Amino acid sequence: MNEASRLRALREKMAEQEIEALLITHLPDVRYLCRFTGSNAALIITAKKAALFTDGRYTAQARQETQAARVIIAKKSALREACGLLESLLGKKTQAVYDPEHTTVSDLALMRSAISGGRRRGFFTPLGNPIVSGLRMVKDADELKRMTEAAALGNRIFDAILPHIQSGVPEAEIAASLEFFARSMGADGMSFETIVASGPRSALPHGRASSQKTPRNGFVTLDFGVILKGYCSDMTRTVCVGQPGAAERSAYDAVLEAQEAAVAAVRPGVTCGEVDEAARGRLRKAGLAKYFTHSTGHGVGLEIHESPRVGAGQTLELKPGMVITIEPGVYLPGKFGIRIEDMVAVTERGGKVLTPVTKALIEL
Amino acid sequence: MNEASRLRALREKMAEQEIEALLITHLPDVRYLCRFTGSNAALIITAKKAALFTDGRYTAQARQETQAARVIIAKKSALREACGLLESLLGKKTQAVYDPEHTTVSDLALMRSAISGGRRRGFFTPLGNPIVSGLRMVKDADELKRMTEAAALGNRIFDAILPHIQSGVPEAEIAASLEFFARSMGADGMSFETIVASGPRSALPHGRASSQKTPRNGFVTLDFGVILKGYCSDMTRTVCVGQPGAAERSAYDAVLEAQEAAVAAVRPGVTCGEVDEAARGRLRKAGLAKYFTHSTGHGVGLEIHESPRVGAGQTLELKPGMVITIEPGVYLPGKFGIRIEDMVAVTERGGKVLTPVTKALIEL
Repeated sequence: MNEASRLRALREKMAEQEIEALLITHLPDVRYLCRFTGSNAALIITAKKAALFTDGRYTAQARQETQAARVIIAKKSALREACGLLESLLGKKTQAVYDPEHTTVSDLALMRSAISGGRRRGFFTPLGNPIVSGLRMVKDADELKRMTEAAALGNRIFDAILPHIQSGVPEAEIAASLEFFARSMGADGMSFETIVASGPRSALPHGRASSQKTPRNGFVTLDFGVILKGYCSDMTRTVCVGQPGAAERSAYDAVLEAQEAAVAAVRPGVTCGEVDEAARGRLRKAGLAKYFTHSTGHGVGLEIHESPRVGAGQTLELKPGMVITIEPGVYLPGKFGIRIEDMVAVTERGGKVLTPVTKALIEL
Repeated sequence: MNEASRLRALREKMAEQEIEALLITHLPDVRYLCRFTGSNAALIITAKKAALFTDGRYTAQARQETQAARVIIAKKSALREACGLLESLLGKKTQAVYDPEHTTVSDLALMRSAISGGRRRGFFTPLGNPIVSGLRMVKDADELKRMTEAAALGNRIFDAILPHIQSGVPEAEIAASLEFFARSMGADGMSFETIVASGPRSALPHGRASSQKTPRNGFVTLDFGVILKGYCSDMTRTVCVGQPGAAERSAYDAVLEAQEAAVAAVRPGVTCGEVDEAARGRLRKAGLAKYFTHSTGHGVGLEIHESPRVGAGQTLELKPGMVITIEPGVYLPGKFGIRIEDMVAVTERGGKVLTPVTKALIEL
């Protein structure tokens, strides 16, 4: 699918919801719809027109990249000038719809200040239904290909980094090597701050790589992702330097079982909450549920975290084309932590794991 | 200065502006005031109390890191529970102040939903004056030390990467090596996506490192920064592979002269607009002003872009303790681009350049 057909799909949704004009400022949404990747953008969509506003830093880049929309280089504020055009395009009683999840209160005031006094009141109305993230949630064939490639690159990086995980090596050095492999193997960059958390630090679910040295004996959790052609990968493995004790091993087995149960639960029509419960229920049986302090997973794509949320009670149903992470974990404060994460694409036949790296406990 | 004295300074400003309660959700502000570095936080400040709300992922980390504020782990939404506490703390006619620049329209609705019906209307009021970014703009001694260290690390990385800039090497490989040096030399990470733009791509002010190979002859612009102990560095140098032509050399000389004029203009009491004009005026004389398509610089600190903005017409006056970038550039579409950037600390005696790497044109 190309940008023109994405715009077509968006316009269908707009027509269904009786939206005549949409203002899009969330950068991943802008990129999805018209391919522009700059850091300042306001995209206007009506039934007939699509116009991208950015600033002078992006004159050349915007003209090179942008598809399916006219490019306008704003003299001052791209957002304000976009609103000026919106006003001139819309009939007297028509409202423009904006995205309240990605619009700050200040930006809304700026947007309103661009509308002439008589029309200002009620000109903008918030989108009720997150329409672009709804489209983005279901990946098209081109996106699935890119995401499979991004995940595969993650797998190769994991294989390459394993020999570098040794007792006494600082976490930050492991992260440095990992990120060098990523770049050298073609990643555009990392999709989030690389997590290398060793020993008792593995009990920090978001333990950034620190200067701490990997201990003689204990877990090391690696959670990292690359960006490849705009798309994010995300994977986690917990490995053991030396031999695990009995408590560590049984906790690892419980997390692995929970992770596999959640992967097995993935298929069209199942709710995100049911996938979460598949993992959480196993950890409950193992008496570890209280140490599982986050959701089971999240959507991934142009952003590292996007819809859907795979958490307790989430009623959204999985559909073919969605790509989610499955990443249960347990964190015993001061002791150790374990997390295992795959990227999983939803297909007609169930979940397809994009991260086929072994999940058996690796002892280094 | 430590977090307790930053909170004291904040409370003085709050008293001046008759603010009884402040809700802070912008993460760098939270970090500045109470040292917590997690990705989800709502900090409440009143004259007597300071409470940090986060979620279960950060239980251990929040207790380890947080200074000068009580830590509360929210069961569901940290933001919503913070608002619940706010309501219970405040007298019937008191308003809570939030930051409209870092609060989305959706979050404001969530915040309001936490307040009981009778009080909801008008409970929250937007901050008129960006109070925390005002404090953060003037760095204390500890911050200046960290920023000087971060800038010095940038300089060492630049020296280390120079031998790797060779004709035929892909930009992305240069970026990979640069980032490996950064991590290996102790950086927590990069402060923004590394820019390596060679040949005609140097005319893209924000040209991310691509798979393009460095040409036989032409400019290579490197714009990169590290994060060290939380603080960002930012520097740009444009070097030449092979020998520059006459047009390239004269443009380089003009940019360098503009950059040095702006650095020389830095001293307390001078406005940001005057610093911008020092650079812009030189480029105007050289007939290149139309190719200088962005501002001269920006504040830097916990964030890579923060107050003040060093742009045309900005009336804010420089004060000792501010740290800004000075980075004029020219971009000739399809031909070449040049940018030279230093970090400059404002002192009583003028600007102190934190980036003492040569700015004479390096020919490789």
